[in-house]
Amino acid sequence: MQLPSSLLENAVAQFAKLPGIGKKTALRLVLHLLKQDVSEVQLFGETIAKMRRDIRFCQRCHNISDGDICAICANSQRNQRVICVVENIRDVIAIESTQQFNGTYHVLGGIISPLDGIGPEQLTIESLINRIAQEQVEELVFALSPNIQGDTTIYYIQKKMASPDCKITTIARGIAFGGELEYADEMTLARSIANRLPVQQYVK
Amino acid sequence: MQLPSSLLENAVAQFAKLPGIGKKTALRLVLHLLKQDVSEVQLFGETIAKMRRDIRFCQRCHNISDGDICAICANSQRNQRVICVVENIRDVIAIESTQQFNGTYHVLGGIISPLDGIGPEQLTIESLINRIAQEQVEELVFALSPNIQGDTTIYYIQKKMASPDCKITTIARGIAFGGELEYADEMTLARSIANRLPVQQYVK
Repeated sequence: MQLPSSLLENAVAQFAKLPGIGKKTALRLVLHLLKQDVSEVQLFGETIAKMRRDIRFCQRCHNISDGDICAICANSQRNQRVICVVENIRDVIAIESTQQFNGTYHVLGGIISPLDGIGPEQLTIESLINRIAQEQVEELVFALSPNIQGDTTIYYIQKKMASPDCKITTIARGIAFGGELEYADEMTLARSIANRLPVQQYVK
Repeated sequence: MQLPSSLLENAVAQFAKLPGIGKKTALRLVLHLLKQDVSEVQLFGETIAKMRRDIRFCQRCHNISDGDICAICANSQRNQRVICVVENIRDVIAIESTQQFNGTYHVLGGIISPLDGIGPEQLTIESLINRIAQEQVEELVFALSPNIQGDTTIYYIQKKMASPDCKITTIARGIAFGGELEYADEMTLARSIANRLPVQQYVK
């Protein structure tokens, strides 16, 4: 695909670097922007650049933040003694949108995965261990991916913790709402039978 | 979906304005950019804004151009007496990538479509008529969408032309390569029988 202008070509190349966007989609996006006002496209470019330049990460939980400490860590209405450990920022957004969790978070930045070359030192595990040692943490809720890497990460953090007197939990695994039993994989079904709940607790 | 930072929120809103990109995809793109270097994201924003600010349209054929006249119009190797009339810039790119056309183009900027409020005056038809009057055009190839609006546009331009002595053609309609006869619509099949070609011409 040969483009009639180097300016267009450069813009398409920039969009095509984004994940899931090929050259044809990139061209469609660029031609859309070409129909917008100059000032609007200027704003688009500036907003993106400014976001990357000025965004900060919370020094406590490593979530995205406008300041040194994120809005969740700074909120005294939230239970600062409960920490939900997640892989990335998207998980924080997903859990926040359920409005079911009133504690704080700790964003690891990934999970331990030797095959991908990700060890504990690439993650914010040390910062989590320090937090547990300094703050009077009552509960640590692991909300990691249900796979070997996730389990390894939980195991590693548990081993590293100096004070094992805080409660350690993990989000429930089981059959999803709307899921049909016959299509559930064996492992999930097995776990959900082993961890069965009293109906009273379930409907609570 | 509540986002933890207003900078993030603004960037997501900008991406979500693009066609085919929802809020979730926008967030994925922004989080990807967040992992890139500041300088790289700066370049991304600047390239897009610069493209919109500096891009120009060829004064002759209305194609995208880096200068007053586009590379195709300025190319003396191309047959400047053959004009291919297309709807938009994407069509130019598509035809150019076939490497089968050695003439010039004229980008209408759309086709006549009263239902969408697009009349001849919104398009570059006048400029095309002037071109035909001034340049010694030998052939006008219409490569418009095969629908009523496309046919209306061809009819309108034909009526407007002062010198009907130039050849007027349209790209061939028929069964696409790889298409199966039984799945072709009646109209296409009917046209492709009516406009059948001698086999010699076909394999040429």
